[in-house]
Amino acid sequence: MAEPIEFYFDFSSPYGYIASHLIDDVAARHGREVEWKPFLLGAVFKIAGTKPLTEVPLKSDYSRMDFARSARMYNIPFAMPAKFPIATVAAARTFYWLAAQDPALARRFARAAYAAYFAEGRDLGDADLVLGLGESLGVGRESLAVGLQEPAVKDKLKAVTDEAINQRGVFGSPFVFVDGQGFWGADRLPMIERWIETGGW
Amino acid sequence: MAEPIEFYFDFSSPYGYIASHLIDDVAARHGREVEWKPFLLGAVFKIAGTKPLTEVPLKSDYSRMDFARSARMYNIPFAMPAKFPIATVAAARTFYWLAAQDPALARRFARAAYAAYFAEGRDLGDADLVLGLGESLGVGRESLAVGLQEPAVKDKLKAVTDEAINQRGVFGSPFVFVDGQGFWGADRLPMIERWIETGGW
Repeated sequence: MAEPIEFYFDFSSPYGYIASHLIDDVAARHGREVEWKPFLLGAVFKIAGTKPLTEVPLKSDYSRMDFARSARMYNIPFAMPAKFPIATVAAARTFYWLAAQDPALARRFARAAYAAYFAEGRDLGDADLVLGLGESLGVGRESLAVGLQEPAVKDKLKAVTDEAINQRGVFGSPFVFVDGQGFWGADRLPMIERWIETGGW
Repeated sequence: MAEPIEFYFDFSSPYGYIASHLIDDVAARHGREVEWKPFLLGAVFKIAGTKPLTEVPLKSDYSRMDFARSARMYNIPFAMPAKFPIATVAAARTFYWLAAQDPALARRFARAAYAAYFAEGRDLGDADLVLGLGESLGVGRESLAVGLQEPAVKDKLKAVTDEAINQRGVFGSPFVFVDGQGFWGADRLPMIERWIETGGW
């Protein structure tokens, strides 16, 4: 059985959102599973001295146009959120708190969180919204609120982020590993699929 | 008759080199022509405060791996030059000096220049090498050397670079326009082809 494909993403990443709609199908076409791994891209920006594309001179207009154009190509609902980027700690911790109990539920939460932010324009940086998204999936608001403060949950997100950046060379979102090969960007999905099909070149 | 597809590239750009092997075929499959437009990416780095990928913390190793991997995917000969990046003024001026006389010859020169740098590892930043490449295409060395100092040639390269950055929003290489739509990156060739096929979305 082949190892799962690893899908690193930040909840504030438009291209991560686009990839989240596509990566499971790409893998499933070739009998592969995907492990979703939200991390904090802000930690990369600090180390690399980079910024969100929308804040880079010359790249801002293009990147906003291209987020929408890329989503349209795949018929993925998309509207650039008024508030961008946002802190994604609450969303990412929720993912890992849920994943420890029910990985499928964690993935449903991730889809709901991305949809709330990039399709409905709601502020995913707001912990109240995150708790409400949990409730809509049947998760008790109080237990989630308490869970987000658990050291094990905080440590898990820190560890995934630290490993991504310092061990795996992740510097953007999405970042996908297929059998150890890293691919940066939603626009690499055709290359990723070809790699899975062929076993690489 | 549809307008030509515009192919902006810098002679020091690995992804521009890869695209140079592919863009004419993509266009030809749909009955389109390509206008090759070398420009000076260094001018972008100055304005945007960005750097070559190989000099960005965290991105350096990935980008070198990905240049080679992307070239291999398309069976394009590639070896990362020891000297990188280089000044591409002489190569770009040569292109425009030739293009004013014989556009097909200018394109042959561009292919030869890219091959010398990215397949053979020769220093394309060296004006002597550029003159030699011209000679190998039947261009008199002396007349080319004089031509590169013509104000019209210097002005042409300045004008293309200035227009690219300040009017067209070009900030990387390759940068392709199809009927006014800009696409950044060699990895956008599948999207570019889909845009040409469908007329856009």
